[in-house]
Order: sequence, then structure tokens, then C-alpha cells
Amino acid sequence: MEIKIRKNVLDRNKNMANEVRSLLQEKKVLMVNIISSPGAGKTTLLERTLENLKDKFKIGIIEGDITTDRDAQRLNGHGVPIVVINTEGGCHLDSHSILKVLPEFNLDNTDVIFVENVGNLVCPSHFDLGEDFKLAVVSTAEGDDKPIKYPMLFREAKAILLNKIDLIEYTNFNITSFRVDLNNVNGRVPLMEISCTKNLGMEQWYNWIYEEISSK
Amino acid sequence: MEIKIRKNVLDRNKNMANEVRSLLQEKKVLMVNIISSPGAGKTTLLERTLENLKDKFKIGIIEGDITTDRDAQRLNGHGVPIVVINTEGGCHLDSHSILKVLPEFNLDNTDVIFVENVGNLVCPSHFDLGEDFKLAVVSTAEGDDKPIKYPMLFREAKAILLNKIDLIEYTNFNITSFRVDLNNVNGRVPLMEISCTKNLGMEQWYNWIYEEISSK
Repeated sequence: MEIKIRKNVLDRNKNMANEVRSLLQEKKVLMVNIISSPGAGKTTLLERTLENLKDKFKIGIIEGDITTDRDAQRLNGHGVPIVVINTEGGCHLDSHSILKVLPEFNLDNTDVIFVENVGNLVCPSHFDLGEDFKLAVVSTAEGDDKPIKYPMLFREAKAILLNKIDLIEYTNFNITSFRVDLNNVNGRVPLMEISCTKNLGMEQWYNWIYEEISSK
Repeated sequence: MEIKIRKNVLDRNKNMANEVRSLLQEKKVLMVNIISSPGAGKTTLLERTLENLKDKFKIGIIEGDITTDRDAQRLNGHGVPIVVINTEGGCHLDSHSILKVLPEFNLDNTDVIFVENVGNLVCPSHFDLGEDFKLAVVSTAEGDDKPIKYPMLFREAKAILLNKIDLIEYTNFNITSFRVDLNNVNGRVPLMEISCTKNLGMEQWYNWIYEEISSK
């Protein structure tokens, strides 16, 4: 399937989040805004998720990337429509860019759009794209202190995926410290401990997102 | 030694990089702006570097952190002055904040100031703090595609530290791809492959930074 690339569509002065939300509500399309540091595993999560869900739901992908379409290329071949937004140096996606690319999808025949934001644990958490919710992905290799050091995303997210749990034994990551800190920042948010590359703990994620899409 | 914490000192409208640079030039103080994603190992690099260099040079530390002094606490006990700049949500340090905290150091008795920027691979690379140079730290756990996906920092940096090389065997990181992509983005920049926690390859870094400080 063709990957569509759109450049220079950001406009920070136009907050179009409500327009995006209204349109998605009307069409009953769930939008998930996936946020993490670079390399925490957003694209691999999407690879696994497409494999699991693509026969159950109609899926679309928006890839936020600074300058390339590398992530989109990795997701190609699953038969789902992908639109790349190149921010050209910009550190996050915005609602204006999302509204501008939504016509690339057939929303009447779409159940969920996964937005892979630019790899950045700080800026994307400040911006409402019009999504139903933000999803935080954090890797054990980043250390156990991320919830307390970068609290905004962990407060905002509807769920936290702790990825690369297979690497814990090779690092000084302390899972108890992580859980305590996360609980102090956001005591209500569900935490799923997974490894996308080693296929550990993925069923809880598939079940959780299945329910979220089904109930929109 | 007391850790000083300064809040709300950012002012994006005042570019004070030239003032910072002039002052550091006059006092013959090298300033290194360390930039990486969250959790790539900036603080651990500083821990190792303080152990190696603190008897050879007079060192100061500026810690950029969103809301805590956790990194500063980790560096405490080495007997070097540390000033924390809490950005309170901000995604990078700026030259105005640096100029404002420089009087906290005795610059006549300082050889080098290491600035640990906010964990963010995108925004800090756009801002000149008045530093002598930017240093990029990237972890193998982030994947081998970072130079091509986030080219700004890799173009700007005077040296690249590839950290956590001990984790390569547990991941799908391809060192050849990394080197090729880095070479395409910046063919002249030195690459040092290290592990701060396992003390691998650190001598090349100590020697390199020793020369940089000595030649200021």
C-alpha cells in the first residue's frame, strides 16, 4: 500500500483539536496518540499490534517523523493506510497537521487511527491533537526514574506500556522503584509490562486496546 | 556540597549565548552541552567522568531537569559545585538561564562546566547556550536508526558517545547500520563506543575530553 508523505503542515497557531475530535466522534473512529522517547519501541509496538488487530478492525496510521519515512516503511506491507507527517525539525505533532491529513483516510471505513508522535518524552505531552487518549511507552533501558523526572506524560496518559522488560536483567532498572514513582505521579493509570520484540505480556495490551476500540 | 536549585529562569526571548561565550572565553572555562534522549546515560557518564577528572581539573555542573533534583543528587558527593535549573515543563535549557546561574560558580577557579541538558533528542539541539560544543550521547537500546531519524543533533555535535554497548547482544541493534547512517549525516564527527555502567571503552572518552579541557 502506498505511503503518503506530507511536509510542512504544522501550524502552532491554529488549535484544531476540537474539530478533529468532533469529526472522529461523528465517524466513530478512535484515535490513540502514542508518545515516548526516541527508541522506546513505538514502531515495534505498532508492528505487533497490526499483526494482532488488522483482521479484527479497520486501522489507519499517522506517522510523525522529523525527516524520514523509515517508521512508515517498517509498517508497510500490513495493508493498512499510512500517512507520514514530516515535521522538518519540529518536536511534536499538532492538531492542525492531524486535521489536514484526516481526509487521506476513508473515515467511514476506519475503526481506529494510531498516531505515532515524534520521539520525545516532553513536548508531545503538552499538545492535544484531538485524540481520544494519549498512550505512554517507556523502555526499561531508559532507567526507572522516568515517571518522576518527566511527570507530564505519565499524568496525561490513559495507559502506560513499560516495554523491553526482557532487558531488565542486564540493566540496573528497579521495577519496584518504577512502580512506586509511577504510583506517586498517577495512582490510577494501568501499567502493562511488556516486550514487543520478545512477545512478552502482549495479550494484556491486545485485550485492553481491543476493548477501547470496541467501546468507541 | 550544597546543591543549588533555580526555578523559572528560562526566557526564550533573550538570546544571551554571546554573553555566555565571552565570559567563558575571558575566564578560560570550557563549557560542554550534553544532549541525549531521556535515559541514554548522561548522568552516569558524568558520574564516571567526575571520578576520572576531578583530581585533574576544577569542574562545575549545571543540571537541567524538568522538576526534580534527582540527577544532581546522584552527582553529589564528588565535591564539585552543582546548580540545578528546573525548567518546570520546559523541554530544553536556554542561554538566558545559563547566564543567570554562572555567578553561582567561581569562574576564576573553574576549568570546565558540564551542562546536562533536559533529556530530549530534538529541542536542545536547536539552542546555542554559549557552550564551546555540544556532545551527543545515544544508547544502543534506542535502536540503530537515530542518526538518520534525528539528524540535527548528530550534525551539530562535536563528538558522539554511543553508550550501553554491553546491551548490543541482547537487542537488534546493528552497529554497521549505525555507523553508516552516522557517516551519511556527519562524516567527520568522532564516534566513541562505550558503556558507562560496565566501564567499557571509557579511556578514549577520558583522553578526548582531557585534551579538550587542556587546550581551552
